[in-house]
Amino acid sequence: MKKIMNQAADLVRESSEGFAAAHADLIRLSRDPLFLYRAGDLSGRVALISGGGSGHEPLHAGYVGQGMLTAACPGEVFTSPVPDQMLAAIRQTSGGKGTLLIVKNYTGDVMNFELAAELAAAEGLSVETVVIGDDVAVQDSTWTAGRRGVGGTVLLEKLAGAAAEAGADLAKVRKVAEEVMAGVRSMGLALSGATVPAAGKPNFVLGEDEIELGIGIHGEPGRERQALRSADDLVDSLLEPILGDLDLSRGEEVIAMTNGMGGTPLLELYVAHRRLVSHLAERGVTVARHLVGNYVTSLEMQGMSVTLLRAGPEQLRLWDAPVVTPALRWGQ
Amino acid sequence: MKKIMNQAADLVRESSEGFAAAHADLIRLSRDPLFLYRAGDLSGRVALISGGGSGHEPLHAGYVGQGMLTAACPGEVFTSPVPDQMLAAIRQTSGGKGTLLIVKNYTGDVMNFELAAELAAAEGLSVETVVIGDDVAVQDSTWTAGRRGVGGTVLLEKLAGAAAEAGADLAKVRKVAEEVMAGVRSMGLALSGATVPAAGKPNFVLGEDEIELGIGIHGEPGRERQALRSADDLVDSLLEPILGDLDLSRGEEVIAMTNGMGGTPLLELYVAHRRLVSHLAERGVTVARHLVGNYVTSLEMQGMSVTLLRAGPEQLRLWDAPVVTPALRWGQ
Repeated sequence: MKKIMNQAADLVRESSEGFAAAHADLIRLSRDPLFLYRAGDLSGRVALISGGGSGHEPLHAGYVGQGMLTAACPGEVFTSPVPDQMLAAIRQTSGGKGTLLIVKNYTGDVMNFELAAELAAAEGLSVETVVIGDDVAVQDSTWTAGRRGVGGTVLLEKLAGAAAEAGADLAKVRKVAEEVMAGVRSMGLALSGATVPAAGKPNFVLGEDEIELGIGIHGEPGRERQALRSADDLVDSLLEPILGDLDLSRGEEVIAMTNGMGGTPLLELYVAHRRLVSHLAERGVTVARHLVGNYVTSLEMQGMSVTLLRAGPEQLRLWDAPVVTPALRWGQ
Repeated sequence: MKKIMNQAADLVRESSEGFAAAHADLIRLSRDPLFLYRAGDLSGRVALISGGGSGHEPLHAGYVGQGMLTAACPGEVFTSPVPDQMLAAIRQTSGGKGTLLIVKNYTGDVMNFELAAELAAAEGLSVETVVIGDDVAVQDSTWTAGRRGVGGTVLLEKLAGAAAEAGADLAKVRKVAEEVMAGVRSMGLALSGATVPAAGKPNFVLGEDEIELGIGIHGEPGRERQALRSADDLVDSLLEPILGDLDLSRGEEVIAMTNGMGGTPLLELYVAHRRLVSHLAERGVTVARHLVGNYVTSLEMQGMSVTLLRAGPEQLRLWDAPVVTPALRWGQ
């Protein structure tokens, strides 16, 4: 195992410290319990909090800031954060209009966020939860009952964050999130496994000409192992299950993300994105907004995922709204 | 070799097409000869053009846009673009105030940009050239006489681009670039090699506990192979030669970039950046601005580099100026 790290046990804490130092204009760090939150005055807006195992950066801390998340709770690598972190983040960032917890559908995350929400409610805080499951690859998986929450989470955090920034109340922000969940689908594939530092060896090993189709962001097995083939064919293999499920009509628009799993160069991701755009064009679907890069990763895994969100005027307006976070930034 | 691509011979063209499709709001594509340039009215500003072998994305096309480059000419992977590309880009983007060519010091790039500049001058166009060599690792290298041009290029493009955007004339933009070159130093290390698609096998192979210190961005050999060690020790090994050369005094400020070579997760880069900040603090040097991520890469190489730029009020003002490009974006 080759990693740029000190002790594995210190990795998440030290990385969070480096992150907070690099982004001191936007971010504040709570060391114990560990979470990162938005700098400045948080009053008068619904707070949006997410979190999950580390190893998926820039998700979630990279999306804390104006127009997106209010706080992020990082767990150990591929391990859920604990309720103490979430509860402390809820208390710290409450702006008097309630808090929405954004949870990717993994059993540990769902359980711990649920417990934190109950503890916060017992203190009189207004907390609601959405659980996203956008991965069409499998129905149940190693760490999940139901669909896994993957790339769609970034789009959900952006749109719900824009609504909260504009002053929407908790019910409205929740409604925006639920509309995203109804219209977003993802699927991914891996060319290699990844190595969890505490384990010291890859979570799976693929043959020289093998890919894993339908992989989860923790290296959970996907649909099946297949032969490596052209980028265009790989993208088609991801789009077909997504389009089979999302049922887009000719003339519709989408926000599309071509996402790298951490170890795939941008040079390759743009080749994939080229096919994504042309595949959708052949079906009469227009990509109205594009996001290409490493946005939801799995450590150094080589691979990619595709996420499509059906986008009407409201989704596009919320997407275009200003966002100022370490990893996503535009509009001002 | 596992890559998300179609034919190796089509990789750069197809990737450029995907890039132009994803960033149609900012970028225009010339297919033949191949280059990417800024959308919109280009008149009345000095044009800034860079380019080089592909495989270092987001360098250079990712930095085309408001407040940074006017055009980028991508060569094949790790291969200089040809003078035809540069000449066409100079003609296309000339705004009547002259053109500055920003060249990383590699023999092929220097030769081809020089020829393009001569051809443009013969047409009566006003073209000047700066050649950056910021890598303190080695004096001469496989493909270079003198120091190699690496991470400092991003900072040069940002600062010179801000000056051009503000209306500076060619002499002033060149002066800004020269001041950056005088004050910027970089050094990198690799934990793994990278595979050039046309070659099909890694450019070098390291042992399980081995790193290459002082690596170039094409996998050119560095200073020496050493044992893998803690992140803090690795960062110290990069900073010491830089600081030995740059000679920063206590109380000075820098713009610091902790850069990934393409295959190293953000989680690890922030651990390295944490040590960079504390190492400099111990020497009385303050990191006034931070950039952490994959900004100058070497395909899927695992590794990192560090770049420091001595920053006075003018450098900070140019750094903070608005920039709207696919890979760097802030201020509006």
